[in-house]
Amino acid sequence: MANSEFGYVRNFEQPDALSLSNWIVVRIDGRGFTKLCKKYDFAKPNDRRALDLMNAAASEVVKAFVDVVLAYGQSDEYSFIFHESAALFDRRSAKLATSIATAFTAEYCMQWSSFFPDQPLVRPWPTFDGRCVCYPKRKILRDYISWRQADCHINNLYNTTFWSMVLKGGMSPTEAEHALKGTVSANKNEILFSRFGINYNNEPLIYKKGTVIYRSYEGDAVTNGESGEARVADPTSKTQMEKERKRKLKAVIAVEHVNLIGEAFWEAHPYVLATKRK
Amino acid sequence: MANSEFGYVRNFEQPDALSLSNWIVVRIDGRGFTKLCKKYDFAKPNDRRALDLMNAAASEVVKAFVDVVLAYGQSDEYSFIFHESAALFDRRSAKLATSIATAFTAEYCMQWSSFFPDQPLVRPWPTFDGRCVCYPKRKILRDYISWRQADCHINNLYNTTFWSMVLKGGMSPTEAEHALKGTVSANKNEILFSRFGINYNNEPLIYKKGTVIYRSYEGDAVTNGESGEARVADPTSKTQMEKERKRKLKAVIAVEHVNLIGEAFWEAHPYVLATKRK
Amino acid sequence: MANSEFGYVRNFEQPDALSLSNWIVVRIDGRGFTKLCKKYDFAKPNDRRALDLMNAAASEVVKAFVDVVLAYGQSDEYSFIFHESAALFDRRSAKLATSIATAFTAEYCMQWSSFFPDQPLVRPWPTFDGRCVCYPKRKILRDYISWRQADCHINNLYNTTFWSMVLKGGMSPTEAEHALKGTVSANKNEILFSRFGINYNNEPLIYKKGTVIYRSYEGDAVTNGESGEARVADPTSKTQMEKERKRKLKAVIAVEHVNLIGEAFWEAHPYVLATKRK
Amino acid sequence: MANSEFGYVRNFEQPDALSLSNWIVVRIDGRGFTKLCKKYDFAKPNDRRALDLMNAAASEVVKAFVDVVLAYGQSDEYSFIFHESAALFDRRSAKLATSIATAFTAEYCMQWSSFFPDQPLVRPWPTFDGRCVCYPKRKILRDYISWRQADCHINNLYNTTFWSMVLKGGMSPTEAEHALKGTVSANKNEILFSRFGINYNNEPLIYKKGTVIYRSYEGDAVTNGESGEARVADPTSKTQMEKERKRKLKAVIAVEHVNLIGEAFWEAHPYVLATKRK
Repeated sequence: MANSEFGYVRNFEQPDALSLSNWIVVRIDGRGFTKLCKKYDFAKPNDRRALDLMNAAASEVVKAFVDVVLAYGQSDEYSFIFHESAALFDRRSAKLATSIATAFTAEYCMQWSSFFPDQPLVRPWPTFDGRCVCYPKRKILRDYISWRQADCHINNLYNTTFWSMVLKGGMSPTEAEHALKGTVSANKNEILFSRFGINYNNEPLIYKKGTVIYRSYEGDAVTNGESGEARVADPTSKTQMEKERKRKLKAVIAVEHVNLIGEAFWEAHPYVLATKRK
Repeated sequence: MANSEFGYVRNFEQPDALSLSNWIVVRIDGRGFTKLCKKYDFAKPNDRRALDLMNAAASEVVKAFVDVVLAYGQSDEYSFIFHESAALFDRRSAKLATSIATAFTAEYCMQWSSFFPDQPLVRPWPTFDGRCVCYPKRKILRDYISWRQADCHINNLYNTTFWSMVLKGGMSPTEAEHALKGTVSANKNEILFSRFGINYNNEPLIYKKGTVIYRSYEGDAVTNGESGEARVADPTSKTQMEKERKRKLKAVIAVEHVNLIGEAFWEAHPYVLATKRK
Repeated sequence: MANSEFGYVRNFEQPDALSLSNWIVVRIDGRGFTKLCKKYDFAKPNDRRALDLMNAAASEVVKAFVDVVLAYGQSDEYSFIFHESAALFDRRSAKLATSIATAFTAEYCMQWSSFFPDQPLVRPWPTFDGRCVCYPKRKILRDYISWRQADCHINNLYNTTFWSMVLKGGMSPTEAEHALKGTVSANKNEILFSRFGINYNNEPLIYKKGTVIYRSYEGDAVTNGESGEARVADPTSKTQMEKERKRKLKAVIAVEHVNLIGEAFWEAHPYVLATKRK
Repeated sequence: MANSEFGYVRNFEQPDALSLSNWIVVRIDGRGFTKLCKKYDFAKPNDRRALDLMNAAASEVVKAFVDVVLAYGQSDEYSFIFHESAALFDRRSAKLATSIATAFTAEYCMQWSSFFPDQPLVRPWPTFDGRCVCYPKRKILRDYISWRQADCHINNLYNTTFWSMVLKGGMSPTEAEHALKGTVSANKNEILFSRFGINYNNEPLIYKKGTVIYRSYEGDAVTNGESGEARVADPTSKTQMEKERKRKLKAVIAVEHVNLIGEAFWEAHPYVLATKRK
């Protein structure tokens, strides 16, 4: 049969399963969003509609992929975190990255008109690239999340100051860029307050902290393992697995703008990154 | 600064550039399309609107990614082929797979209503997973394309027979499946002809051969290298590269349903897989 | 210059650095040792000279590679464990595997005559293949070590019984194999005791437990971190690093045959797999 | 059984098979040979005994690994080339690299005393690291070989001039290095000739060209395929494979110092890199 003559080409596919017992982050980034911001006249420094759309899209992705334990987003990026024990798609890297990235892209495009009712979406459609990164320890995953949130803060403080100088202070972008070169956080806070009457602390949390999305089981009982770590059931029987899947599908999808760098959030929601019982 | 404390997590990203001098195939596949076919009542064995949508989406992807030299699609899958010398995204595997898969998904979702005007798209949106495969020789890439086209033929002959037995012959799916077990092509051709008056040879080419998409430069001069291989310019200066990019953007995107297994197509379009001049 | 014309081939080398914050095991295995055992008439079920040679070779490798925190060996295999924070050779997989495997091979060949003075080594020389495996958690690394030691025990119990039946019981190898099919540990212990008067518990530890090699710092002060984990200095300044290297070079290389599956060994030597201070 | 409890750690091993239809180069390099050269007083710029030892070791490796089609060496490095269709060890990268590197190391150590009878080898033993690199086309593999031979020539011309200036010209190493900075080949040839009466063209070929090792089948009939490429039998039946293996084991191992950059060598020995019949 013709097929068997050519079937050998299948052997050129390389295995790409991610290492076991590693937290998997699938981070997606808007492709060419600088142009897109201009095309649709996004507000500066932050466009609330655009962020709301990002969060609405991400919520649906979290809802659809029950293996995602948490997602964090800011600007035109989102990180979807799979539990270190996740077995979805046999942990194949390309499958995970493309499934998440296309689901997010579809949501973003299809929900666009709800957030930008007066601006019909035209080609080139917004799309997102993606990649998988493995983190071998919960502590390092936490640092990853902190890294993205610190990045959000740094960029937002810069952008808030920069666009105040341009939009309210009458500076040209080049002048503002020049003026901000070498400044530290305190300088920017000072500029905002003294020149523009803005207390950065009072800026909306969604801009300063970005957005975290997770399944909330506030009512659920969560047991603590002997190592002092929170543990949730890691069901092994098929019935249990189906039950667990349904529990996750029914869970409330919490969308919040809170500090993730300190311990408070994690102590309040120990089950989010909890070790599974073996 | 907070960022530098956490920035080390960046070092967990693994390089994923694909080997140089290999043809790159990005194949995308519809996720959960069996369900989707039922939900939107796709005609059996082939839904022309669905195939036209696939091809319309793929054409736009080829148009947008000038490094794609050829695309081949059938059923709910499409293969996008990058020239072995392609340098797009530094040949990073995840970036290539997610960029193509999200571009295709966006096209499919956004063009849906043009092909299914009476069936509004509802969640879960259609999405496509994807992966990169490297082929080190043109000959092997040709075999890959032949493999997909042979697969198209085999499946279409089976499906055409199966659905004739069910829809016209009044068999249950189980009965039809049973009856076809162990049959070869000749048997299926015979069943189609004797029982249902269908001459398989007269079936539409789009069903039997799938769809090939490529940039057509029929008018262009193409020189032949000393090795007897067709060669096209591989521009090195920036001006030349920009000129080449524009030439590609202006090229006619040909969409055809033809035999790719024999030599005819390739001899008629030697520039499609031509070696670049160094 | 000629070189620049060909230098592009360098770009075909693929990066192969192992993921950060993973324990690295380089396991080496004797190549074709079944033949070698016959050629040099190794005693059955265990040849003490051969095991002593393995351990002598491994000790020198541990001595030479100060980044190795522990090595475990049995039969014709040895596992060399690098700390999860090791930076040797930038964690390049091929470099680590080949450096360890060639160092071990050289030791084995060059020390041969000390252990087999009457049997001159002839070609093909004994060689060892090797590979790197990453373990993301100390717990999993511990399970790896337990796996190898459990394997040692299982094989040794089997081999001790099998060779007793053959060498003392007058069975043919095929008969012995047949007789042992389906037996569990208790059966083998019983056979050994009742038929051959061997109490397996009294067999030498080197055969039952294999060999562990580590740097012993029994006199050294080791502080305990707040997480209850033992910690050792992770020197960052160059002077400190050099001091640390010298400390390791001077450390006693302990060679022992002890149980590694339980907690006792690890509690007695907490510094062996201790987390480094950041 | 204890084993099954721990056996899961096996799943952390990552597959590492090299892409099919790629030429595989295993290049080994002497570890710390600068020190070794000093320790054993290697002659400068070339130590004939050391090169002869390298070549003797490589010959034995080629003899032992019948899948190696050609090896090229210079200085303290050697490249072993496997045919693109090689299936040895299922093309596993670590297994190939460590098997070749340990075989070479064992040969080097065990043959040392034949080449350096007056200088007993002492610890640290000479060892070699290694790595696999894939080349997807014969043309690129040829460029790899040319790259190494061009490197040999460049280094040898430099070293010959440098050491003439130091050993015969009475310059300090720093002075010689300084004097050679920025010089091109012509300058070095001139220095050698005018100051030291050395005509570089008359230097021994082993120093200027390095060493190529291959299986010579000069008497054998080799057929030419229709593509104009030389082809050798690619036996598929077991009997044929065994016959082929024996033919290779009996083949003469040719060791030569010739130009590999031009076409002459390859035209004279078309079977060395010949495509196998499928």
